[in-house]
Amino acid sequence: MTMIPPAQVVLASASPRRRELLSQVGIAAGICPAAVDETVLPGESAEQHVVRLSQTKARVVAARADVPGRWFIGSDTVVVRDGTILGKPVDAVEAAAMLRCLAGRMHTVISGYAIHDRADGRTISGTVSTRVWIKALTEMEIAAYLASGEPFDKAGAYAIQGIGAFMVPRIEGSYPNVVGLPLCEVLAALEQLGAPPLFS
Amino acid sequence: MTMIPPAQVVLASASPRRRELLSQVGIAAGICPAAVDETVLPGESAEQHVVRLSQTKARVVAARADVPGRWFIGSDTVVVRDGTILGKPVDAVEAAAMLRCLAGRMHTVISGYAIHDRADGRTISGTVSTRVWIKALTEMEIAAYLASGEPFDKAGAYAIQGIGAFMVPRIEGSYPNVVGLPLCEVLAALEQLGAPPLFS
Repeated sequence: MTMIPPAQVVLASASPRRRELLSQVGIAAGICPAAVDETVLPGESAEQHVVRLSQTKARVVAARADVPGRWFIGSDTVVVRDGTILGKPVDAVEAAAMLRCLAGRMHTVISGYAIHDRADGRTISGTVSTRVWIKALTEMEIAAYLASGEPFDKAGAYAIQGIGAFMVPRIEGSYPNVVGLPLCEVLAALEQLGAPPLFS
Repeated sequence: MTMIPPAQVVLASASPRRRELLSQVGIAAGICPAAVDETVLPGESAEQHVVRLSQTKARVVAARADVPGRWFIGSDTVVVRDGTILGKPVDAVEAAAMLRCLAGRMHTVISGYAIHDRADGRTISGTVSTRVWIKALTEMEIAAYLASGEPFDKAGAYAIQGIGAFMVPRIEGSYPNVVGLPLCEVLAALEQLGAPPLFS
């Protein structure tokens, strides 16, 4: 655990990308990853899944007496293609299969978010969807992108904010949501829970 | 002028954001800003304007015998609201006016691009438009965003890749295009002009 002691906002996630998004708008969040079982439950929709994991992550960390802070942010991101949830690929074969199945078409990136206020026990949560178009990919492009190492810890096997930008000509919706956190919605929820507005 | 000697790709722009976008996908471009008059000509549409400036920038730099390189990229980005082109604000009063006029509604970001091949004199150029939604802004948010200094060298007085992310819940189109360069289109044009593919 890397904890910034004075942080009032704690990100219940190990994702450097989520931390970077908060830092981009001036929020120096503490980091405390929550170890949560990410298995999709039977009958659970993608939206239900990401919001459940987001809530669990935020509450698990907020429940830890050794972690200071007031607002706890949980989040989870999945890629959905034709109703199928694509998580993080386990190996190169699965990563290549994911990229082939996303190439030349549109898919949806769904991020859940939950902000838990330790002061009064309230949680605000929700999901945000962004449609993403991936260009047609050659086998050489897929092999070389895998060789870069970037796909392996990313839902859907690509990073829009990294080298993966080469394959995304178009999105519809929130861009930070594809990176891993719907920034505007998270900021609005923080304000609703009494956090000082961004520029106060 | 900062020129990276071995660069085959030269960016005819001083924008660190455009350079960063190319670097994100592995292209170490040389930088050679072109001093070009950016006045909008009478009767010129936003698309005509950005493509003309892009072509001029690319060709002006390609014509310089002291600048090595083969492919010269020119680009220009404007923000258009209800048919009015918003460039870079000249002062805080104009920046505040631009932000007020963009708040709570949709506008269009248009980037022109031109890639000039010094080897055979060919130029490929085009424009890409992205629709951007800005949330309603309070006067406190506008004043504080101005105080950050970020709006002053940005078309439309905001930076989607900076603090300005707090106000953009949605886009439709290319994200790097809003940052300043339509990456997929530029990469395709480079390949068409004989540049080695990204992953070769």
